[in-house]
Amino acid sequence: MVITLGELAIRFGCTLKGEPEVPIDSVATLENAGERSISFLANPKYRRQLAATRAAAVVLEPRFADECPVAALIAPNAYATYARIATLLYPEPSWRAGINAGASVAERTRIAPSASIAAAVTIENDVVIGERTRVGPGCVVMQGSSIGADTCLSANVTLCRGVRIGDRVLIHPGVVIGADGFGLAPERGTWVKVPQIGSVQIGDDVEIGANTTIDRGAIEDTVIEDGVKLDNQIQIGHNVRIGAHTAIAGCTGVSGSTTIGRNCMIAGMVGIAGHLSICDGAVVTGRTLVSRSIRKPGVYSGGLPLDEARRWRRNSARFRHLDELAKRVESLSGRAMPSDEESGDANGDD
Amino acid sequence: MVITLGELAIRFGCTLKGEPEVPIDSVATLENAGERSISFLANPKYRRQLAATRAAAVVLEPRFADECPVAALIAPNAYATYARIATLLYPEPSWRAGINAGASVAERTRIAPSASIAAAVTIENDVVIGERTRVGPGCVVMQGSSIGADTCLSANVTLCRGVRIGDRVLIHPGVVIGADGFGLAPERGTWVKVPQIGSVQIGDDVEIGANTTIDRGAIEDTVIEDGVKLDNQIQIGHNVRIGAHTAIAGCTGVSGSTTIGRNCMIAGMVGIAGHLSICDGAVVTGRTLVSRSIRKPGVYSGGLPLDEARRWRRNSARFRHLDELAKRVESLSGRAMPSDEESGDANGDD
Amino acid sequence: MVITLGELAIRFGCTLKGEPEVPIDSVATLENAGERSISFLANPKYRRQLAATRAAAVVLEPRFADECPVAALIAPNAYATYARIATLLYPEPSWRAGINAGASVAERTRIAPSASIAAAVTIENDVVIGERTRVGPGCVVMQGSSIGADTCLSANVTLCRGVRIGDRVLIHPGVVIGADGFGLAPERGTWVKVPQIGSVQIGDDVEIGANTTIDRGAIEDTVIEDGVKLDNQIQIGHNVRIGAHTAIAGCTGVSGSTTIGRNCMIAGMVGIAGHLSICDGAVVTGRTLVSRSIRKPGVYSGGLPLDEARRWRRNSARFRHLDELAKRVESLSGRAMPSDEESGDANGDD
Repeated sequence: MVITLGELAIRFGCTLKGEPEVPIDSVATLENAGERSISFLANPKYRRQLAATRAAAVVLEPRFADECPVAALIAPNAYATYARIATLLYPEPSWRAGINAGASVAERTRIAPSASIAAAVTIENDVVIGERTRVGPGCVVMQGSSIGADTCLSANVTLCRGVRIGDRVLIHPGVVIGADGFGLAPERGTWVKVPQIGSVQIGDDVEIGANTTIDRGAIEDTVIEDGVKLDNQIQIGHNVRIGAHTAIAGCTGVSGSTTIGRNCMIAGMVGIAGHLSICDGAVVTGRTLVSRSIRKPGVYSGGLPLDEARRWRRNSARFRHLDELAKRVESLSGRAMPSDEESGDANGDD
Repeated sequence: MVITLGELAIRFGCTLKGEPEVPIDSVATLENAGERSISFLANPKYRRQLAATRAAAVVLEPRFADECPVAALIAPNAYATYARIATLLYPEPSWRAGINAGASVAERTRIAPSASIAAAVTIENDVVIGERTRVGPGCVVMQGSSIGADTCLSANVTLCRGVRIGDRVLIHPGVVIGADGFGLAPERGTWVKVPQIGSVQIGDDVEIGANTTIDRGAIEDTVIEDGVKLDNQIQIGHNVRIGAHTAIAGCTGVSGSTTIGRNCMIAGMVGIAGHLSICDGAVVTGRTLVSRSIRKPGVYSGGLPLDEARRWRRNSARFRHLDELAKRVESLSGRAMPSDEESGDANGDD
Repeated sequence: MVITLGELAIRFGCTLKGEPEVPIDSVATLENAGERSISFLANPKYRRQLAATRAAAVVLEPRFADECPVAALIAPNAYATYARIATLLYPEPSWRAGINAGASVAERTRIAPSASIAAAVTIENDVVIGERTRVGPGCVVMQGSSIGADTCLSANVTLCRGVRIGDRVLIHPGVVIGADGFGLAPERGTWVKVPQIGSVQIGDDVEIGANTTIDRGAIEDTVIEDGVKLDNQIQIGHNVRIGAHTAIAGCTGVSGSTTIGRNCMIAGMVGIAGHLSICDGAVVTGRTLVSRSIRKPGVYSGGLPLDEARRWRRNSARFRHLDELAKRVESLSGRAMPSDEESGDANGDD
């Protein structure tokens, strides 16, 4: 696809600095862009690459406009504008409507005529699939599940029984939604399985990364609200609720019955304990252990950064005696250190 | 299914406080139960919801019986009793016996007539599948594997060559059992692959959560004993042995050649190093790094809880100088701090 | 297969101490070897088992030769030599060339005649598959991907659009390569998806463990160079580059745009932040948080080892006041502690 700078400026509401007739056919990084490519500057870290770029044009914010050596599309939110331009230039492939002969579809289903069902797909009874929805190769949709319109299950995705998925949802390969939550009752040294009777509800405009797992609820449903974005290899326990437009990065795990608010940003490899509540707008940095509820918006951390191994070992050996160390200091100074209880509630823990 | 309170009391050995004729057709939470639902109280955290419940009856332990505003099924282990009632009210779907026409089954196999093989399944030669076992859509069972009776491979499960699975095992979607362990011999800046010749043995009554992976042994087998319960996205390295009735929560990883005892409880995101031994009955809390063997039953921890980011940064910057800090204190007080060696063996490390 | 010790010595360039006619038909551990098995000693931890072994012979390094009670194959790198012997004794199964009738293969593909395509496989248009390559059951190869020669996709592997895989690559079940990177532009409380236009390049002789995910690049490609070895459940973000012969253990995550050098060894459950650079030859121990670039080869750590829970709680409560503690000590001693800035650059962080 080819489009001129002028058309891009009009379509996406940018101010154009440069010639409107220049044709654009691709996007590229500042560093490697050629004469028909458009690039963008969003992260100031890449600012020094701007001066040397050979892009046809750069999408950027007003504050960087004067530094731009080539044409510029000036937009208040350069990254979002870039995203829209790239979406235009690189349209998703369209899927042939209909059911592939190599799919196994039960008799009692309601599949929209414009839906596309690939080979090696299994669809059980009482499943509903909406208009223009794609169920890619190797996917399994178990009994009673429903999928909205314009949704895509990429490949090898499993939806267990009775899962409900909204519209415009994008589910990457290997995702499992609705497997049993980890419910076990201890009894005389063994475990009795607790049936997981709830299911999973996924709202509209959700994206779910590869090999992420979302368990079904024990009694009521696990709920992922509209616009939530989940990266790869995330584990969501039973009866978790994630509020609208919250984004969670890869390898994070959320234990059962925890509620996460709206518009949170949770970084990668975060571990969130069960039965907690995290307020709207909380930000949690990478590798944090969230072992208490968060009641005030703000930024929370918990990861200790690496060190050279020898130094690390010395310091971590000392950590094992930190309490004794603090007592020694208290005794030397004749005053108690602040304890957790006295330290106020800076991080809103319960 | 509908059953009366009286029948439930008899069948599960509870003391009934209330009218035996009341019909029950569902389970529900204390908060949302209706007049034909049974609920339960196991976690005292939910005790205050008991007073307001509108359930037909509540399964609970004797100590809570007096507080219950509705009928009660009194049992010594309320959670296990609830689990059994729920299992009765919500029976698993039954699978049609036989091999779906869309499955690909090799000639030299022994599949019980009552087994159910779904579409898009691949079963290679020399596979044995027991009575009433379900192999769900998209599963792959490679050469020489055997699966016992009443076992379920939900969907998109992969069993590699020669894996042996017991009876009444439940394997959730996306699980991979018997992929090669991570065996590499370094040689002049490259790696020589070490063939993984062992396999995997899974006992009876095991449950394995979605997208969990269990590697085959390097020479001998990786072994998961009877009654072990594994949550989602767990990684079990080659030649690990996990003792009977041990439960492990999601996202935990166990490195190669480690032995975990019986009746352990390992929480989520725990990392267990290789070649260790963990005794029977050990309890490890969330996010712990188990870098040494555990020789005494008890509770072990290792996760630092979150803090407000600014405070966290200040404290973690200090951590990088903890050894100097301790030396300063030793010098001020004129006495050495206890070292790791002197501190006894409180946690049974080796 | 049976081979004599003498033949093994000649074929793999070992010094034989013992009778060359002894037949060998299997490998075994030192502990459980029988009279036709060969074993090896590489990890000195298992040295005491050498004295009692009943193996026909043991592969070992010159320093252990005198202790060996049975025949010995003496090699400078015993583990690599053992690996080669085991590869000889346990050949990989060979696959029948051709396309299984249960596979779904698009019209416009180029599949080598010696390639083996299993049942329940889906191959889209413009895919190229090299000689003797195996695409196992349930795999999906999306449009425009290419796979070299002698490569194996075990089962249920997904390659998304335009992914390029080299020769002699081994990809274990459940792997997803080329799913969208986690690219989101925030806009007024919601997220705009940033199209992920790059793809993934995997070099030759790479091994990728079960359920590992490697995301496609945002604009340019994610790159895994020759000889890289990835264990299970690793997450590789978009535009990461991993240098040749680097090995990464299970459950590690690498965030977007980070570059890892050649010949690095990264242990399990390590978390590596985005936009970092890790030099050639770096070694990172288990559970480390790599939040800064590593510029000097060496060993880096970041995991705090477990402790008995009560002690851990006391120490971690003190950690929350470590900065105050350090200030108290500074005040007592009348001298500032070294700060991060003053402490030099021992670990090469930026």
